Amino acid sequence: MPDRSFDARDTQMDELARELRIDAVRSSSAAGSGHPTSSLSAADLMAVLLGRHLRFDFDDPAHPGNDRLIFSKGHATPLLYAMYRAVGAIDDDELQTFRRRGSRLEGHPTPRLPWVDFATGSLGQGLPLGAGLAWAMARLERPSGSEDGDGSGDGGDARAAGSGGAASQAVPRVWVLSGDGELAEGSVWEAAEFAGYHRLDNLVLVVDANRLGQRGPTRHGWDLDAYTNRFNAFGWHTRAIDGHDTTAIDDAYVDAEDTLGRPTAIIARTLKGRGVPEVENREGAHGKPVPQPDLAIAALGGEPRDRVTVRTRPPVNMRAVPRAGERDADRDKDAELPSYEVGESVPTRKAFGAALAALGDARADVVAIDGEVGDSTGLQPFAERHPDRFLECYIAEQQLVSSAVAAQSRGWVPYAATFAAFLTRAHDFLRMAAIGRADLCMVGSHAGTSIGQDGPSQMGLEDLAMFRTLHGSTVLYPCDANQTARLVAELADGTGIRYLRTTRGETPVVYGPDEDFPVGGSKVLRAGDADRATLVAAGITVHEALKAADRLAERGVPVRVVDAYSVKPIDAAALREAAAATGCLVTVEDHRPEGGLGDAVAEVFAGADTGDARDDRVGGDRTPPRLVRLAVRHMPGSATPDEQLADSGIDAAAIEAAVLGVVGNGRG
Amino acid sequence: MPDRSFDARDTQMDELARELRIDAVRSSSAAGSGHPTSSLSAADLMAVLLGRHLRFDFDDPAHPGNDRLIFSKGHATPLLYAMYRAVGAIDDDELQTFRRRGSRLEGHPTPRLPWVDFATGSLGQGLPLGAGLAWAMARLERPSGSEDGDGSGDGGDARAAGSGGAASQAVPRVWVLSGDGELAEGSVWEAAEFAGYHRLDNLVLVVDANRLGQRGPTRHGWDLDAYTNRFNAFGWHTRAIDGHDTTAIDDAYVDAEDTLGRPTAIIARTLKGRGVPEVENREGAHGKPVPQPDLAIAALGGEPRDRVTVRTRPPVNMRAVPRAGERDADRDKDAELPSYEVGESVPTRKAFGAALAALGDARADVVAIDGEVGDSTGLQPFAERHPDRFLECYIAEQQLVSSAVAAQSRGWVPYAATFAAFLTRAHDFLRMAAIGRADLCMVGSHAGTSIGQDGPSQMGLEDLAMFRTLHGSTVLYPCDANQTARLVAELADGTGIRYLRTTRGETPVVYGPDEDFPVGGSKVLRAGDADRATLVAAGITVHEALKAADRLAERGVPVRVVDAYSVKPIDAAALREAAAATGCLVTVEDHRPEGGLGDAVAEVFAGADTGDARDDRVGGDRTPPRLVRLAVRHMPGSATPDEQLADSGIDAAAIEAAVLGVVGNGRG
Repeated sequence: MPDRSFDARDTQMDELARELRIDAVRSSSAAGSGHPTSSLSAADLMAVLLGRHLRFDFDDPAHPGNDRLIFSKGHATPLLYAMYRAVGAIDDDELQTFRRRGSRLEGHPTPRLPWVDFATGSLGQGLPLGAGLAWAMARLERPSGSEDGDGSGDGGDARAAGSGGAASQAVPRVWVLSGDGELAEGSVWEAAEFAGYHRLDNLVLVVDANRLGQRGPTRHGWDLDAYTNRFNAFGWHTRAIDGHDTTAIDDAYVDAEDTLGRPTAIIARTLKGRGVPEVENREGAHGKPVPQPDLAIAALGGEPRDRVTVRTRPPVNMRAVPRAGERDADRDKDAELPSYEVGESVPTRKAFGAALAALGDARADVVAIDGEVGDSTGLQPFAERHPDRFLECYIAEQQLVSSAVAAQSRGWVPYAATFAAFLTRAHDFLRMAAIGRADLCMVGSHAGTSIGQDGPSQMGLEDLAMFRTLHGSTVLYPCDANQTARLVAELADGTGIRYLRTTRGETPVVYGPDEDFPVGGSKVLRAGDADRATLVAAGITVHEALKAADRLAERGVPVRVVDAYSVKPIDAAALREAAAATGCLVTVEDHRPEGGLGDAVAEVFAGADTGDARDDRVGGDRTPPRLVRLAVRHMPGSATPDEQLADSGIDAAAIEAAVLGVVGNGRG
Repeated sequence: MPDRSFDARDTQMDELARELRIDAVRSSSAAGSGHPTSSLSAADLMAVLLGRHLRFDFDDPAHPGNDRLIFSKGHATPLLYAMYRAVGAIDDDELQTFRRRGSRLEGHPTPRLPWVDFATGSLGQGLPLGAGLAWAMARLERPSGSEDGDGSGDGGDARAAGSGGAASQAVPRVWVLSGDGELAEGSVWEAAEFAGYHRLDNLVLVVDANRLGQRGPTRHGWDLDAYTNRFNAFGWHTRAIDGHDTTAIDDAYVDAEDTLGRPTAIIARTLKGRGVPEVENREGAHGKPVPQPDLAIAALGGEPRDRVTVRTRPPVNMRAVPRAGERDADRDKDAELPSYEVGESVPTRKAFGAALAALGDARADVVAIDGEVGDSTGLQPFAERHPDRFLECYIAEQQLVSSAVAAQSRGWVPYAATFAAFLTRAHDFLRMAAIGRADLCMVGSHAGTSIGQDGPSQMGLEDLAMFRTLHGSTVLYPCDANQTARLVAELADGTGIRYLRTTRGETPVVYGPDEDFPVGGSKVLRAGDADRATLVAAGITVHEALKAADRLAERGVPVRVVDAYSVKPIDAAALREAAAATGCLVTVEDHRPEGGLGDAVAEVFAGADTGDARDDRVGGDRTPPRLVRLAVRHMPGSATPDEQLADSGIDAAAIEAAVLGVVGNGRG
């Protein structure tokens, strides 16, 4: 089929929408699954966006002056991929691979596609990501050298009102397409608060209010006022429109582009399944191909003889804004990390904070994100030294993680920190970040029962399990201040989700400041030829293990001590060597017995995958070592840190007893 | 000290507030930690509530006519416990045990105290819990036989307006004390939406807007309009008051009690540290004792010679409402569970739904809670048969879990279901539910890569790890429809958080309908004297394991197959026996390798705890078996279910290859 190109400003929107609908029907019918009805409702909204407003160079998706488009209703991929075809980014052959094995056109979008920034499909995440992205683009990147001069400060200050619609035309914008059902998610309002407070006028939310969820009608149906009232209350500009009237849509987008000082929410009344009579506005038609695609395409006017190819508007000229990865002229400069004397007592959370501030001195691409606990997690020094690269998300962990995911999509290196316990609030966002191949650093303080009196609500006891389970993650748990500082710097150049776990109380410095701590490594802190067992510890329990080892040595029971600061990847070679030398490994962790250090150690000796005998992990060890797992098995209350460690059975006395149990009796 | 009793209606509120403040200072100073300043700000608010409004019999905390009080700002325990002392529920000796080892007066409240319904301390959870509780009290318990006659239906219908303030006086009420900082949490607005939609006029939120968070000022400081505007938009009645003016507070509470058809939010402007000059309205005074307690107490007017004892208002007469545990006259009636023919193909999610509907027929205490995916998870039949015990939470997983936690606190047996993947959204709520000793059933459908084309965002791949890590949890993963039905019924009488994992696609029925499946058990599906390995599977992988076993048998390599449907607790005895008989266990799971079935099996052979040789788990097995762990190690895309299982290395072919690898080569 020959292409019939349109200039963006001349595109016949209704014709484009018709073609998007037809392609949405075709691809989902070819796949035998998917969400055409959720795509049909939003086709007009996206046609006008693509044809008249979206500034995006599909040949240069990383251009910093591109608008960004986030499909929060990630299931509407039949529409998204139809848009990609309409701009010529993919061809029809590829469109027909939708949902097939190996295709990058997955059921829900992921950054395997170069035009997608984030994985979506868990509803209510598009706006938090979009708000974080709009913040990064408007505040971190401050395009003050670019033609538009948009570079207002942060901290909730209003941008200068009335600085002109023309200027606003030249700011790259974040467009988020959301369903109405997903507005029930609290994360949407957490983000609405964030965006309203920061007056992110480069953010536009388009709500495809098609009235029908998966099971049935949404809470508010077509009561558009319910939504506009809420967004207005959060400081947004709002418009309620007919989402099938392309002129009204165009007007609303122009209005959004002309609105300064506030983000805009456009609530569009639409019909689910619009244009296909068999499914239009009907319940029970969610998430399945239309019953008769040929009839549907006929009802939509039939396949066009000539296909439209849309030329989108060009990106904003952003000369002054470096691309992702080009931001840091000083990247090779070594950070002057803080250093500590051996024997000094320092909380690792403080060492983290000092190291991050130093890293921020050396690298212009490091960003710190706080959940209103920066005085506890250690972020405060960074906030003071680098206020322009510090984001206070307040008590909002979903937005905290979303902001970090957004920042990394622009090439920044975010460190987002709160109490380890409260990172569980953002588990689904971390899960989606892993699916989205996000590269970011998470820091959880106040790990384990050793926090003491505050009690279990404040104790991170599940965080190692949560982060280890994330695909492609790195999990580090330092035991002293020098180790922490080095790991903070090392994390910056990693990939995937890197998690650093820190401790509330002071721990003695056991390593010199020049020691290296590679990811995937470990340190042997005690070893001798006669060792009868190996203690494998990390973080706070390293110090308990050392105490236990000293006592055991006095009793004539020498043991090895391994500091497994890299919980994932774990140092399999060192553990194998220790197992071979000492026969038994005793793991000790200030964490639940499930999913943490004990599990990581056990996995070393379990085979994985199939067939390939060259792979170390295949087949499993024929004679795996004896393992003993000390972990927090009870429900703690309030107590001092030392009492907590004792009550949890992970202090030096408990370790000593466990080793004596192994040496003196034990099953077999 | 002699008690000087006050009648509730005569209580001198300012004097009571003064005493609460003094006790808050005393207890936290004695503990050497805690949050007195966050307590001082709310003392007047709580004095008026306790002295004039709260209907609560402290000798009968389970009375169904009691109001409920939730401290969402759980760190304000110095105030909460001072209130308990003021009513005589605890004495001063106990108050001085605050935050000490063994004391039930923990740093943050838990239901170890009989007057506390929920553990709090992770901010932003009190309102979701309170909203769920208000819903349960107003809609599930329908006190139509009680004197007040409040028994409106559900579904968002308005209660009859103007039915009289007198009636509203007699409804037991839920009071939630919240901080201002925590209003940044999306979960608060998820709950505001829920409560506004259900017109829960038995819910009152009291916001202690003291302007200061932990690190510094809150987002909106004393801009009370920011909060009233937001709550108004969500359909609430609001009042902004001076939170230190006891008359204004009293008026606001009366107003809330007189408001029909809407929940009320009272936004109270307060001073953090109120009454203690050294810390009043100052930054840097969060979460620590006041610097000089003697001076503080003097500034507060000095310790009273006679202590107030408050007599709270009596509970509402709720003759018609049974107490928790007394609700179900038919509890002994066996559910007529659905049954299936061996060989039939049925998705376990459908079997779950049919069984739950049948359980609902037999038991009047079973409640089902949906996240707008009831047509997918299987809840739909229950919704149709028992609409009065069905709650649609829409796409709001935090409210879903909070509603379940709330319902169980009233003696109901909730089953809350959504996709397994999306339960990660509520991880922090589940974590707190475990701390709060909640008894409830969670159901996660669409587990694993076997869902097929929808792709990774919809796949529960971390859920086993998340639920196993929760303290006191039970984790079940049935492989066929009859097993599912039996487990659904068995779960009803369990304790703690019970998780049932279901599968999207059809699986063949392998068990007869009369087979028993005790929690903690397993089933041996293939076994012989010459077995050379054991396949340990659960759910979908049971069927792959059976296929692999048949193929291996044909090749002359007989293997045992264990269906480990009870992932936690796992059947240690059966696994030990299998290990002893076959030497090697191969675990196969449609889940990440971390924290799931493979970990559960490995834990069986790892020792735990210390010293006691009579404990099976002590010391670890001297010669643990060889283990091989097959799990989902890659990032899936879209593909058919069979392709997904193959690509994940967990289908029959992969299992077969793994066994041949073990038998033919392998390390050791």
